[in-house]
Amino acid sequence: MPMLDSITENRIINSLASKFCRSPLQQNLIHESDAEIIKIRKNSESPITVTIDSISEEIETGLYDDPYLIGWMLVMVNFSDIAATGAEPVGILISEILPDNLSSEYIENIQSGINDAVNKCGSYVLGGDTNSGKNLILTGCALGRSSQNKYLKRISCQKEDILYSTGCSGRGNAYAVTKLINRNESQFSFYPAARLKEALIIRDYASCCMDTSDGVISTLDQLTRLNNCGFELVDEWIKTVDEEALSVFKNNNLPDWLLMAGQHGEFELLFTIPPEKESEFLNSARSINWVPVKLGNVIESKVIRLKLYGRIVSIDSELIRNLPHQLNGDVKGYLQALLEYDRFLRSD
Amino acid sequence: MPMLDSITENRIINSLASKFCRSPLQQNLIHESDAEIIKIRKNSESPITVTIDSISEEIETGLYDDPYLIGWMLVMVNFSDIAATGAEPVGILISEILPDNLSSEYIENIQSGINDAVNKCGSYVLGGDTNSGKNLILTGCALGRSSQNKYLKRISCQKEDILYSTGCSGRGNAYAVTKLINRNESQFSFYPAARLKEALIIRDYASCCMDTSDGVISTLDQLTRLNNCGFELVDEWIKTVDEEALSVFKNNNLPDWLLMAGQHGEFELLFTIPPEKESEFLNSARSINWVPVKLGNVIESKVIRLKLYGRIVSIDSELIRNLPHQLNGDVKGYLQALLEYDRFLRSD
Repeated sequence: MPMLDSITENRIINSLASKFCRSPLQQNLIHESDAEIIKIRKNSESPITVTIDSISEEIETGLYDDPYLIGWMLVMVNFSDIAATGAEPVGILISEILPDNLSSEYIENIQSGINDAVNKCGSYVLGGDTNSGKNLILTGCALGRSSQNKYLKRISCQKEDILYSTGCSGRGNAYAVTKLINRNESQFSFYPAARLKEALIIRDYASCCMDTSDGVISTLDQLTRLNNCGFELVDEWIKTVDEEALSVFKNNNLPDWLLMAGQHGEFELLFTIPPEKESEFLNSARSINWVPVKLGNVIESKVIRLKLYGRIVSIDSELIRNLPHQLNGDVKGYLQALLEYDRFLRSD
Repeated sequence: MPMLDSITENRIINSLASKFCRSPLQQNLIHESDAEIIKIRKNSESPITVTIDSISEEIETGLYDDPYLIGWMLVMVNFSDIAATGAEPVGILISEILPDNLSSEYIENIQSGINDAVNKCGSYVLGGDTNSGKNLILTGCALGRSSQNKYLKRISCQKEDILYSTGCSGRGNAYAVTKLINRNESQFSFYPAARLKEALIIRDYASCCMDTSDGVISTLDQLTRLNNCGFELVDEWIKTVDEEALSVFKNNNLPDWLLMAGQHGEFELLFTIPPEKESEFLNSARSINWVPVKLGNVIESKVIRLKLYGRIVSIDSELIRNLPHQLNGDVKGYLQALLEYDRFLRSD
């Protein structure tokens, strides 16, 4: 998959997995879904979905410095992947590497965050492991079940499908600005909840689905590479970003569209609905008082287009996605590079 | 469970889990099994088993310093827990925290160890996650399936049940001596394999089962606390330890019985067979050319007894199990404390 390989992260994953054979019970190829879709037996009528996700870099950079949030996020990043496959949560297993100098109060706060998050998801901690170590690192492994052999993958969207999001975007990146760029910025609440309830409706209508754990542009970039298609955002995409997040960016003189480009996502689901199913889908959404956010359309060209500075721009999402690896975790350098690319777009 | 709480590790686990509710789909209580036994749906006919285990302390102390072994062990520690529940392996998910300074050759060796170990287990890597971080840490989450609602737990052994092991003990502790105590000792091969094949036979006969990931004495100690019983080892327990491991201990003037007391185990399964099932069990074992090692018997008193220095001794397994936490990872101090306890036993 040469297009996938242009992205450093995909290349690293492909290289790590290069020796491994796929299980004949696995229903997805590598990169094809947010969680692995596995039949437990050859004749299982419906598969389980399972994912593993660690929180380490976010702790090391100071992005997550509150123990309650660390516990909360551990659960949500994992269940968000489960949601993106259209599965219901069964539970989560947690491995904690705890430095010896952590206070018992700090550890209790981690556990409270975990507990509140699993309760919010209507799910359970099933088990765990604990070790001591130099740095705090949490790893979760979440299980989901999907019924009647129905699940969502990142693949199979078609030209003219309509691109939706479960909610407004930008809170993840606004939070990151308040934590890593301008700590004078007033507190910004960031407790994303995995979109599990919505996922069960999306599952019945969508042609593909992926969560925005890495932000909207990175998610669309990956979908572009997997589906050999592109996306055009609605002219008024500004109405699809979160208002509070927009204020943070305005206060810090940051361009609005970077709310979608930054790679600390908001854990919404992006998904595509075939036009003929749209009205039925919206009816179902209404039944749970949910208003999906229309983000754009699938297009034939393999680009991500949006209206910016008075014209239609194709975003160089490859450049944007590769920045974090290129800059090796240098947060300020990363923002400078994004701003430089923004200046290039303005002047072009 | 006051008896369980006398052990620091149990107390830490209980405290971490104290806030969490158990899932109604979970078929085991905390501590009751090596892996969690979960029904995916209320009406599932057979549960899956799932476990999470990280390798971090072993890397930090230098016990595992070979990348191939690190990968191998990650898979085996997880599948050993699956085996201890009498399940077949479905696959494993792996999260890798990789420091930036690791060479690509080092990483390839980790992946080779992982790949060879999953092949040895007849299983698959199902997916993973990768992050950068200051220290190398690997976490695995293994899945197993058990058929016809049959699985093994650590509980339910009865007085006079016969204690067996899948193999000889001591290789884990002999390896640890060559790595951490006397590096002049010649290379000692340590590539334990999860006892998956044997587990499927044990499942049909055993009253309880647990792996020796923490060594024989610690395993028996936990079974004692869970079952309100004790164990008496056969008089000739020396014949149940591995010969090569025995040589390492002799070369280093270490008491033989510490091959069972040290807490770097050999990943055998310890299990108990009701006397009336023993002969049928041994026949089944023979059918796969496996000779189980008879280790002793279940007794009523809540002690671990063995013949040592010419008399029957009750081992203070609580003291032994709590040493690693008490000494906070000081390996030499740990060995000194074990030797001191051995001197006490000799002189008593």
